[in-house]
Amino acid sequence: MAHLDHDPDARPDQRSLVDLASVAPMTAQLNTAGHMEVGGVDLVELAYQHGTALYVMDEAHLRHCLQSYRSELTANWPNSVVAYASKAFICKAMCKLVAEEGGWLEINSGGELAIALAAGFDASQTVMHGNNKTERELAEAIGAGVGRIVVDCFEELERIQQIAAERGLIQKIQLRIKPGVVAETHSHIITGAEDSKFGFGINDGWAEQAVQIALQSPNLELCGLHCHIGSQIFALDCYEQAVEVLFRLIGNLRKKIGYLPSELNLGGGVGIAYLVGQQAPEIAGFVKTVTGAIARQAARLGLTQTDIRLFIEPGRSIVANAGVTLYTVGAIKELTGIRTFVAVDGGMSDNIRTCLYDARYECLIADRAGEPRDALVTVAGKHCESGDVVAIDSSIQSPEVGDTLVVLATGAYNQSMASNYNKQPRPAVVWLVDGKVREVIRREEYADLLSCDVG
Amino acid sequence: MAHLDHDPDARPDQRSLVDLASVAPMTAQLNTAGHMEVGGVDLVELAYQHGTALYVMDEAHLRHCLQSYRSELTANWPNSVVAYASKAFICKAMCKLVAEEGGWLEINSGGELAIALAAGFDASQTVMHGNNKTERELAEAIGAGVGRIVVDCFEELERIQQIAAERGLIQKIQLRIKPGVVAETHSHIITGAEDSKFGFGINDGWAEQAVQIALQSPNLELCGLHCHIGSQIFALDCYEQAVEVLFRLIGNLRKKIGYLPSELNLGGGVGIAYLVGQQAPEIAGFVKTVTGAIARQAARLGLTQTDIRLFIEPGRSIVANAGVTLYTVGAIKELTGIRTFVAVDGGMSDNIRTCLYDARYECLIADRAGEPRDALVTVAGKHCESGDVVAIDSSIQSPEVGDTLVVLATGAYNQSMASNYNKQPRPAVVWLVDGKVREVIRREEYADLLSCDVG
Repeated sequence: MAHLDHDPDARPDQRSLVDLASVAPMTAQLNTAGHMEVGGVDLVELAYQHGTALYVMDEAHLRHCLQSYRSELTANWPNSVVAYASKAFICKAMCKLVAEEGGWLEINSGGELAIALAAGFDASQTVMHGNNKTERELAEAIGAGVGRIVVDCFEELERIQQIAAERGLIQKIQLRIKPGVVAETHSHIITGAEDSKFGFGINDGWAEQAVQIALQSPNLELCGLHCHIGSQIFALDCYEQAVEVLFRLIGNLRKKIGYLPSELNLGGGVGIAYLVGQQAPEIAGFVKTVTGAIARQAARLGLTQTDIRLFIEPGRSIVANAGVTLYTVGAIKELTGIRTFVAVDGGMSDNIRTCLYDARYECLIADRAGEPRDALVTVAGKHCESGDVVAIDSSIQSPEVGDTLVVLATGAYNQSMASNYNKQPRPAVVWLVDGKVREVIRREEYADLLSCDVG
Repeated sequence: MAHLDHDPDARPDQRSLVDLASVAPMTAQLNTAGHMEVGGVDLVELAYQHGTALYVMDEAHLRHCLQSYRSELTANWPNSVVAYASKAFICKAMCKLVAEEGGWLEINSGGELAIALAAGFDASQTVMHGNNKTERELAEAIGAGVGRIVVDCFEELERIQQIAAERGLIQKIQLRIKPGVVAETHSHIITGAEDSKFGFGINDGWAEQAVQIALQSPNLELCGLHCHIGSQIFALDCYEQAVEVLFRLIGNLRKKIGYLPSELNLGGGVGIAYLVGQQAPEIAGFVKTVTGAIARQAARLGLTQTDIRLFIEPGRSIVANAGVTLYTVGAIKELTGIRTFVAVDGGMSDNIRTCLYDARYECLIADRAGEPRDALVTVAGKHCESGDVVAIDSSIQSPEVGDTLVVLATGAYNQSMASNYNKQPRPAVVWLVDGKVREVIRREEYADLLSCDVG
């Protein structure tokens, strides 16, 4: 058996799987049956026992990524917090795992808070985001004692002050600043540009005004500033630019109103590789770039690491490559001269990213994982819609009906964005580690589809 | 009070709402409080009592559209079936309403079948689609006695024959034919092109081969052919082309193997107007075009109306304009020289179509429905993603925090594609008629978000 990363002597027939190491779960390997396995579990056997579509996650990979952020920050900026961005994938087990690894949780809604609380997560180690938190959500968050609320607009400053005052509490907040930096990523997930729904702009004076209001609000404790330029970013110089812009603001704030933030929250983590050959930045390089930029800028203001607590909120880079989706091949249509469609038992209900972002994925056949991926196919879903495609023009092993087809790097924004379109029950999520299978989210049944149907 | 369609004497201050008649529910009107109402129910009051985001549907509009298809077909082709395409929106109440209006139900999965059965819908009046029905779904469908299975691939012919044989049944089927007609619509919902995952091609001989296999399969009764060229189509000549292609195939089948279908299923209905000024075809015109084309082509083969039972499967054109979504305005950001963001308490979790298809919608403020819509805004959702926009550059009444914002024409593919992204509980669906409010799908609670979370 050849571990993907570590065995240079992989036999030729294992090359297909080895080639996928940069996008596959870290424990993925070929077993003696010629099948793909993750966490010591045979994926063909798993599909047979748990059914498909099935979300699979490599628990060791999840822990490894969280530990990488933690250890790199400890080495470069010990006064720091890693807050896992739960919108990428959340369930009680995930919240517990984050807690075990010493992380905080970044949440974006009352629903995400409810799951964190149900998991017994310490609310004081959560950071709550959202461009339009409802009054109910703010009341729930303040009532639960969330660690930080990242305030996004003037209306919210007022609402939080009022709720906190009514309860006789002081709520810690950060202010979301819009740096005006255009990150190189998909337009849907650029968030730091001036034309963005998120945060307070700098050039229009909103950021300064928000700081002043926060400082004057008796039930708000302004801990610092937040700035997120987008998601799935490869070009690290965008972060350097954002840090520079932030510190220009900080310099002005100190000069004009004598305010110095004690916390800086730089938002999301590093981009990841979905396709072989994509050169995603390493977590180490990302942390060094960001902390280096902050150190340089802070020094110009005479500040050091002890003056500034750094928050980072990675999501995708923790869970995306840890996850794969298993499907069963149901039908194959070879359209001569056009394309071969391989139809699977899921699709846009469990993975909307292909349709939504033109996302691309690597796929393979788990049953013959070591064979060359020399068939060019389009993996189509089962939904009544032509746009329902999982992977366009993907190279896989020559497929057969009944095969277990694996789509790699589906751990982020797949389960969390899943729908019941065509009344497709949402798949289970199983975590694999040390040869053991642990179901963390059960598969929906038809009865679940009817649970809210009161008519 | 001015009914949208019928009152030419609408006062000037009611013009905004009157202008929206082509995309609004048919009972939408301005009431004496200056609010928008549907089915005699004040939408501002409704939002207050039922909370937002809230899906609202005009029951009279639903019935009217079903009746229009039925009466136009009765006038032009009495030997016909209107099968409502449930993927656009399904719940038990909708299945019951379709039954009350004499319609059949088009279903696309085991889940949609389960809901139809839970509603007591007569399975013999269902038509089951899908490019990759699983063996479980086929077994459920055959066991339940679905009226027609529309067969999409060779694997399925074999599976249905086998299951029907095991149960000693004869299963009625139609074959899905791919006409090679490229309809003028969004690429995601073109379905009849040669490069499509759906159906049997004609030029490659698959259609003929499928007919032969079906005729030789003792437990299959081949009732006829199905052909769907896509969704949201405005150019009716696409249907004429498809009918022409189908009859060329029928002529060849009769000549070569002596087969004549007794049923023709032309799939989806007519496109609808999402924006004011879009000239969607009338149901009457659509039915006349389609039945006229069939009559002409049939006559060339010496066939008449009694020889061919016509199936039509409208979905969007029944429910889309019947539905609106209510949100509460939570925050307003006027970015000088850029745009004004109006943030609402929902977004891509309850309406993915804006992000997915670049869909556009008309919006208004229910509280001041009669005032001019002279504010150009972007309605942003509450999700942590810049792409989370409900309506880009939309004209609405000057908005205020706390207003009830209405998005029109959201009855199709909104609730049915809804997700729990950011763990947003999915909205309730209420039907309005004669001043009464009837909840057909209840709002999800946080507990529902945890119902499958077993970890």
